[in-house]
Amino acid sequence: MKKEIVSVIGSGNWGSVIGKIVAENALRYPDLFEAEIRQWVFEEDFNGQRLTDIINLEHENPKYLPGIRFPNNLRALPDLIQASQGATLLVFVLPHQFVREVCEKIKPGISSGARAISLIKGLEITPDHVTLFSEEISRKLNIRVACLSGANIADEVAQKRFCETTIGSQNREDGLLFQKLFDTDYFKVNVIRDHVGVELCGALKNVVAVGAGISDGLGYGSNTKAAIIRLGLMEMRKFGQTFFGTVEDTTFFESCGVADLITTCSGGRNRKVAEAFVKTKKPIDVLEKELLRGQKLQGTLTAHEVYEFLSPRQMTHEFPLFTTVYRIIYENQPVESIVRDITLQ
Amino acid sequence: MKKEIVSVIGSGNWGSVIGKIVAENALRYPDLFEAEIRQWVFEEDFNGQRLTDIINLEHENPKYLPGIRFPNNLRALPDLIQASQGATLLVFVLPHQFVREVCEKIKPGISSGARAISLIKGLEITPDHVTLFSEEISRKLNIRVACLSGANIADEVAQKRFCETTIGSQNREDGLLFQKLFDTDYFKVNVIRDHVGVELCGALKNVVAVGAGISDGLGYGSNTKAAIIRLGLMEMRKFGQTFFGTVEDTTFFESCGVADLITTCSGGRNRKVAEAFVKTKKPIDVLEKELLRGQKLQGTLTAHEVYEFLSPRQMTHEFPLFTTVYRIIYENQPVESIVRDITLQ
Repeated sequence: MKKEIVSVIGSGNWGSVIGKIVAENALRYPDLFEAEIRQWVFEEDFNGQRLTDIINLEHENPKYLPGIRFPNNLRALPDLIQASQGATLLVFVLPHQFVREVCEKIKPGISSGARAISLIKGLEITPDHVTLFSEEISRKLNIRVACLSGANIADEVAQKRFCETTIGSQNREDGLLFQKLFDTDYFKVNVIRDHVGVELCGALKNVVAVGAGISDGLGYGSNTKAAIIRLGLMEMRKFGQTFFGTVEDTTFFESCGVADLITTCSGGRNRKVAEAFVKTKKPIDVLEKELLRGQKLQGTLTAHEVYEFLSPRQMTHEFPLFTTVYRIIYENQPVESIVRDITLQ
Repeated sequence: MKKEIVSVIGSGNWGSVIGKIVAENALRYPDLFEAEIRQWVFEEDFNGQRLTDIINLEHENPKYLPGIRFPNNLRALPDLIQASQGATLLVFVLPHQFVREVCEKIKPGISSGARAISLIKGLEITPDHVTLFSEEISRKLNIRVACLSGANIADEVAQKRFCETTIGSQNREDGLLFQKLFDTDYFKVNVIRDHVGVELCGALKNVVAVGAGISDGLGYGSNTKAAIIRLGLMEMRKFGQTFFGTVEDTTFFESCGVADLITTCSGGRNRKVAEAFVKTKKPIDVLEKELLRGQKLQGTLTAHEVYEFLSPRQMTHEFPLFTTVYRIIYENQPVESIVRDITLQ
């Protein structure tokens, strides 16, 4: 059997954790995977040194994952072509805005029978269409693409705190192979078929977290927050089942569903900024500058996109929580409507 | 149409909140319900006055729900027979140890076509059998009995903080009638058929909360806690579906399922005492004396009963979280096993 040649595309905080896990598992299954794991690292200067040099010499990424040692078989490469040439398994773990360009560049070099897995967060929602990044990669590279999402705060995974995650793979064999690549005793992988549901959860949860944060800002307590989380989970499910026929109920019981939603609504920047939105009465773009150094908040952005998608279909009233979050943030609707308007009439 | 005559049996913290809601809704639907709502109040002395006198004069229960005003049509009665005579709808909201005795006493006086709803928390689990209190009441009184459970911290409901709850009723008409009795704009009632699932959730969630508290005591963070909550929800479902064929997947998406589990694992005494168990290394019975004034902790008790039920069936390994919680609390198994031993091998 030919061994799989694995490339990890991306090296931020989550990408660094994933690179480490993948490199450890490559050593654990020497019959399945080539030992060397190449990781594409966007080159940066770090204290006068090149980040890739530091990673390769010190086996640590001091910028995005300080204090965590990588195994020696993880090799950082600043050149995308070099990092992916001949790869049979591709792990995409980078911000979504780079996906298309990366695919164009690596396409000629990857193995013809390659498969990929997407750990990219978010969706691309336009008024016309919802694009899953796993499907976008699949179209661009003409290969099968699975996805992975779960209740996985990167730093906690890096510290080997027990958690679970979900792989969605239409192809059962691919799913089991990726399970071997990612599963450890502290990072438990469940494989399901419903890749669409897995990926939807990862994006829509952030809208719910904005709702939970608004409730926290109003001091509404645990009952209310639990109700918002539950109603949010039900709208995530309805969104999936309305616009993608294949989404299954049981997906929402997986780590990518209920568990990730719980962590996102407990901590997390979406919840936090929404809480500040209520308490400070400042607009979201101001809070983004103050609290996120100008980065866009994912949950409000997704709420906006979802609204623009539902609106021409005359379906905003069928998703009262998503719609209420949008109206509170962008249309000055009173924050108290987070509890008044979120149940189906 | 004959109006329903409603009796509320019980008047603790939750019973007082429920009495208030029921009395308000009786006025809201004068065609459906007799205005006067009788509530059986276990007579106590409060600052030299009888508690029932205070409730009837001041329209407040200063002992169990201070600061919340009751509507004038709620009448407190110290005599159980007087409080239930001729009732057509009975609301049971009292500690489970009194249920059987109460049923014996009220049976001769209630209306022949009466129906009941149980808000009693907990189950009775012996090595032979799992008894639901709704079914026990049904057997004792020979009437149909529904149940109600949800993410409903009593004080938050009393303050009209928005939340949801679930009614489980095999009989659809009964379910809709009880919905009218309980539903308000801040206390949203969903009615489902699966009364067994509703009642199981209300008891088994406490075992999961002990697991979550152990994880908190160890400082394991949000990923781990979300994983424990998710695995717990799956064991609750499996317990229901293994021992009661009728339990449905979707029940766990209701307020009685995922939402109540979230609140119980966030705040709540079970979580808190379990956290103290890890941090102080004191046995549970000592902590019960110190933190609960000698009251028994529900979650550890239920973990014990569940273990005694699973053990003769050789099924403890099929419920690794429930079993691990039991072993940590009662068999000195290391607390760290809360993450090592809770996934199916």
